[in-house]
Amino acid sequence: MNSSDKQGGVTDRKIPNSVIKRLPLYHRYLCQLMRQKVDRISSQKLAGELGLTASQIRQDLNYFGNFGMRGYGYNVKELHNEIAQIIGLKEQRQLVIVGAGRLGRVLIDYPDFKEMGFYFRALFDNDPELIGREINGKKIYNIARLEQYLQENRIDIGVITTPPEPAREIAEILVNGGVKGIWNFAPTTFNFDQEQVVVENVCIGESLFTLTCRIKEQIERVENILG
Amino acid sequence: MNSSDKQGGVTDRKIPNSVIKRLPLYHRYLCQLMRQKVDRISSQKLAGELGLTASQIRQDLNYFGNFGMRGYGYNVKELHNEIAQIIGLKEQRQLVIVGAGRLGRVLIDYPDFKEMGFYFRALFDNDPELIGREINGKKIYNIARLEQYLQENRIDIGVITTPPEPAREIAEILVNGGVKGIWNFAPTTFNFDQEQVVVENVCIGESLFTLTCRIKEQIERVENILG
Repeated sequence: MNSSDKQGGVTDRKIPNSVIKRLPLYHRYLCQLMRQKVDRISSQKLAGELGLTASQIRQDLNYFGNFGMRGYGYNVKELHNEIAQIIGLKEQRQLVIVGAGRLGRVLIDYPDFKEMGFYFRALFDNDPELIGREINGKKIYNIARLEQYLQENRIDIGVITTPPEPAREIAEILVNGGVKGIWNFAPTTFNFDQEQVVVENVCIGESLFTLTCRIKEQIERVENILG
Repeated sequence: MNSSDKQGGVTDRKIPNSVIKRLPLYHRYLCQLMRQKVDRISSQKLAGELGLTASQIRQDLNYFGNFGMRGYGYNVKELHNEIAQIIGLKEQRQLVIVGAGRLGRVLIDYPDFKEMGFYFRALFDNDPELIGREINGKKIYNIARLEQYLQENRIDIGVITTPPEPAREIAEILVNGGVKGIWNFAPTTFNFDQEQVVVENVCIGESLFTLTCRIKEQIERVENILG
């Protein structure tokens, strides 16, 4: 099945994780350009706006097909559609959130997700103050009902926004309930057999570290120039 | 200044961005191990817990120095300290948040940041309902006061958690006010001259895309096996 035939479509190309991580950045910026009725963009301009180098852009976009033309740049709409297809934005995915605190509510309110095909179905919590309330039209259920809910509803992705202690146990309930992926925001790291379920452990501060490292590099560069 | 002398310390080694992005993941997990009084760990074990391959781990950790020993694994504490130094956790950084909505409040409440040397000093908003209130002991000021505040206080990093429309203008006020970095959560992408300021455009959904891509890959792999 793994032919290297260029006509073989997206699924035949193995895209490195480092490139996949930049897809949402490209996708968002291409959406912006489409709203501004921009038809094409050069790799230099893309690089400048996204804080990458032009050669990195060209290398990344080579994975998605042959959209760049010398002296013309990239066709914004074609590139956007290809990236959307790779991310799988045209498929719908059902999600539940476990943990109805502030972060859970940030996620369920986030405007972009629905248009990208991610549907939050319900929230779960153990706080009696929260159980039975609604956020953004979605009900908060007692966490004790999670197992049964997963039996009755096909859920693709479970989102964990609880404190660290219960996170692993919740993840096991989600896995037994048949989710294919876990998006874990709890400040603890775990994993399952990849054949069974895919886990993304999210660290809110990740990009703050990246920023800090880049500031440090920049200061050192200036100090070197100044001698 | 850029000697390749192995004794030259962290700042002499150029670490790729893809590796830098994994530092917080390593850092968090090593903290967990230290709390559990674990002294050493093999690359296989690290890989399993973090969802990476053992060879990726070995490659990454080579950037940080020679901590791995065949048949022994990695010294947890030494590795932790080296990573903390690279991230610059031992230096203190002053931050302000512009946008005191849910996301701004998630960030200012986040327990890990302070112990990592990130100090949130104040929030700014234009909502009269919010101005003058306090969150987590930090005051919410009128956004009209941001420029003056930056003149009177040395702020390293500005965090933007507003809607997309005002984000670029706020970023300019922050840059003119002397910040070295901008951590932008507003759903819009922009950049400045890197000599002047470093920008990290954050997309909350980024890791959800990564997760989705990995689920897709996994399903295709299983389908291929089943024929």
